[in-house]
Amino acid sequence: MKRRDLLRLGATVSAGAAAGLLQGPLPGASRRATPVPGMTPASKASEGIRARNIIFFAYDGTGYEDLATASFFARSLGRSPLHFENLLGMGRSGLMRPESLTSVVTDSAAATTAWATGQRVVNGALSMHIDERELVPILHLAKDRGMATGLVTSTRITHATPAGWIARVPSRGMEDEIAAQYLDFEPDILMGGGAGRFQAEMRSDGRDLLGEFRQAGYEVLRTPAELAASTGDRVLGLFSEGTRHLPFEVDRVNRGVESPSLADLTFSALQRLEGAGRGFVLQVEAGRIDHANHHNDPAGMVGDWMAAEEALEVVLRHVARNPDTLLIAVPDHDTGGGVTYGIGRRYTHSTPALASLHRRQASLEWLLRDGLPRNPDPTTVAAGVEEYLGLPLASRRAEQISAVLAGERPEEWDWGHPNAQGSRNNRVGHLLSISDETPPVQRANINFATGAHTGGFVPLVLHGAGATQGNLGVIDNTELFRIMTDALGFRYENPAMDPRAAREAETSD
Amino acid sequence: MKRRDLLRLGATVSAGAAAGLLQGPLPGASRRATPVPGMTPASKASEGIRARNIIFFAYDGTGYEDLATASFFARSLGRSPLHFENLLGMGRSGLMRPESLTSVVTDSAAATTAWATGQRVVNGALSMHIDERELVPILHLAKDRGMATGLVTSTRITHATPAGWIARVPSRGMEDEIAAQYLDFEPDILMGGGAGRFQAEMRSDGRDLLGEFRQAGYEVLRTPAELAASTGDRVLGLFSEGTRHLPFEVDRVNRGVESPSLADLTFSALQRLEGAGRGFVLQVEAGRIDHANHHNDPAGMVGDWMAAEEALEVVLRHVARNPDTLLIAVPDHDTGGGVTYGIGRRYTHSTPALASLHRRQASLEWLLRDGLPRNPDPTTVAAGVEEYLGLPLASRRAEQISAVLAGERPEEWDWGHPNAQGSRNNRVGHLLSISDETPPVQRANINFATGAHTGGFVPLVLHGAGATQGNLGVIDNTELFRIMTDALGFRYENPAMDPRAAREAETSD
Repeated sequence: MKRRDLLRLGATVSAGAAAGLLQGPLPGASRRATPVPGMTPASKASEGIRARNIIFFAYDGTGYEDLATASFFARSLGRSPLHFENLLGMGRSGLMRPESLTSVVTDSAAATTAWATGQRVVNGALSMHIDERELVPILHLAKDRGMATGLVTSTRITHATPAGWIARVPSRGMEDEIAAQYLDFEPDILMGGGAGRFQAEMRSDGRDLLGEFRQAGYEVLRTPAELAASTGDRVLGLFSEGTRHLPFEVDRVNRGVESPSLADLTFSALQRLEGAGRGFVLQVEAGRIDHANHHNDPAGMVGDWMAAEEALEVVLRHVARNPDTLLIAVPDHDTGGGVTYGIGRRYTHSTPALASLHRRQASLEWLLRDGLPRNPDPTTVAAGVEEYLGLPLASRRAEQISAVLAGERPEEWDWGHPNAQGSRNNRVGHLLSISDETPPVQRANINFATGAHTGGFVPLVLHGAGATQGNLGVIDNTELFRIMTDALGFRYENPAMDPRAAREAETSD
Repeated sequence: MKRRDLLRLGATVSAGAAAGLLQGPLPGASRRATPVPGMTPASKASEGIRARNIIFFAYDGTGYEDLATASFFARSLGRSPLHFENLLGMGRSGLMRPESLTSVVTDSAAATTAWATGQRVVNGALSMHIDERELVPILHLAKDRGMATGLVTSTRITHATPAGWIARVPSRGMEDEIAAQYLDFEPDILMGGGAGRFQAEMRSDGRDLLGEFRQAGYEVLRTPAELAASTGDRVLGLFSEGTRHLPFEVDRVNRGVESPSLADLTFSALQRLEGAGRGFVLQVEAGRIDHANHHNDPAGMVGDWMAAEEALEVVLRHVARNPDTLLIAVPDHDTGGGVTYGIGRRYTHSTPALASLHRRQASLEWLLRDGLPRNPDPTTVAAGVEEYLGLPLASRRAEQISAVLAGERPEEWDWGHPNAQGSRNNRVGHLLSISDETPPVQRANINFATGAHTGGFVPLVLHGAGATQGNLGVIDNTELFRIMTDALGFRYENPAMDPRAAREAETSD
């Protein structure tokens, strides 16, 4: 029973060596000296699943604490439990380990590549290794087999999470190239935001991709009305200008920012793909939860969780009608580490404080970009925060926010939380989260640990198409590629890269 | 498809009304206007489980993000995956919703009461409603049926989580009374810390409970050697003085603080309870993860997670030998909201930074209480932090910590995170977490959102005794009481309290 040397690592494992152990493939249970009897691994994740259609429902940048906060919020709307909560008790559920090839914390590019190709790559890369070996994403494999394919997202359509399912680029920032690769690939459905990358005047190469898509037989849709009127089976839907994403749900609903909802897009995409009658693989992304969490904006987060719920309901109705459809629902990683925390003596303020989320009628992004003038003085900041977020603000905090918006960086900034990523939205979000001058029940008791992604495991569900009751346990994000190909009845092995070689290449990069 | 009023709540739901909706029983899926076909609830959680013994393995104050961080840490020890990760892919697993009767955020007293009695109470109360109606905890019901009973913990034995399984008190602070109720109840095993509440000179009533326990036939054990030598089947083991808990694992191992490990206690308790031959219910608590998280001390957290793993291994070996034993493993709630976050360009610093956890050779509590003099000057602070935590500290941060330890509260404190609960440990932990002057790979990239508990769902496992593969989904903490009584073959219904009445009583309290 004496294992006193368990933690005595200073003597035996240097931090550098430990970093080496932390990276790369898992040592696995075989490293344990004495396996425990009866501890057998879970059965094969894809066992018994056979699907004609796959809907991969991606939540960008969220996790278990958000799930609880969204569940609390949904309860106050009479919409509890969440569909996602129900799914966790059905089908096959578990946890996903969201690492990249060389980091315990993934970005969305490496994360989507793991799903789409079954291989981990370095952060920032899309379906391509750092040595520029291309991988073959699942949408290519599906199209080769005669299936229809589609991408739906609330971000701009050339953003990382959708892009990795089609495009192969060394850096997610190459969005002009991603748009061009979309045209080369010709998926049936592309719906999201960000028209700029398709317009001659905004592209570095001056190509008119909108025109080229039309020539290739696509309907190009730009408004909710056009979406509703369209009947084509090949669609490029771009519902926001330039590099903008679709609006946060809280702004679409309360600030009147015109856009189809994620549920609208999902419904429209599924109708067309179902009509094609040859099986399909569709990725739907609730993509802006991640942005709200980067901003430390809890109203943005719960709003887009509710939008995801509506889109998920559309998907669940499809699966109920088409039991040969496999739904995979999972976040790519968590972002922000936001929590609903205990406040007040015996935490009696926690529930009423959380309800103050309902006072927030705009996202932080909208407030700072559209709701306030450039460089607002403290009085204007306080008035805007009160009007749109329902949050009374003490003068000192308004002064701090005003200073941030003017680009100042006072010395006390290092009392903020780590890795705020230099975003003014995040800095303001942090200031509002810790705004403890207001009576506690007037501000939501939600705070964030970071402005960055986290390494936490995320919840995972397989539903439909024979995914009967079972625990997946903790599985790697790459495993989902194999679950999809197994479900569709084929195997494909993309080339792996050694994490040490990748790290060396990354360091010299 | 138009549900644009989803979030427009300002007009329809006041924040006050929303608070009302947030509290109390879940409205449930029946509130949804149009149920989705095919969305059937999970099968009964306790179905097919029949147990002779129950081991309830409680993690105090941890959750999914800690699980990932502990998993990363275990990997660098060659001990990955964690037993707890393996369990999540076996038996019956799911998520637990950890609310109290009147708050979305529970404390450990209400949380343990939910487990032990199947009823939610207000925070702070132990197996008693706020109107002083007593509830009957599972250990009473088990003993009435001739079973052996025991409590093992790394906190002092009169702390909330163990206490609620035996004692009924309106406030968890009544630890003299809790110790006395332990004697009245006479469980077979009591092992933990905190001898003071049993000693005449430290009790308000002057009773010599140690003597009274001996008279009642107990062996009273105070050291690891006494534990090893003891063979009795009725044991009171108190392995720390006064009100102290058992040491953090990182201090037990590296600082030589004498104590049995949690695994030692668990092994010893199980041997005795198994020997009694009449079935048993044992609660084992890894109780100090919560404290480390309250302190925002990541080394304390992962150390005690590793200690929990060793104790869990002891339990798993017992279950393998005794397949009629049901293991329930679950945290009571999450604390701190600590996350491993992305740092550096493309998060390339994240993995090496995390490895710097290995430099930490003491808990924050030990450093501040035993490793530094009272009111240390900044130079002494920096030297201590460097020596024991391996963390180079910039002079400004050392000055801030010195000021905190001297009881100062500079104005920039409100740049800290919410609800630090006034604990100096937490304030110092926060300062070290955001200590961004050090090279990023020399400090662990772990930060915390709060010094308080969170509302997040927590991972739950049932293993052994017929708990075969299946998803529990998201279940209430109270459900675990019913799973235990079903497993033991009886039913008992403790009285429920209306949450609105409880909230009124709490407000006038």
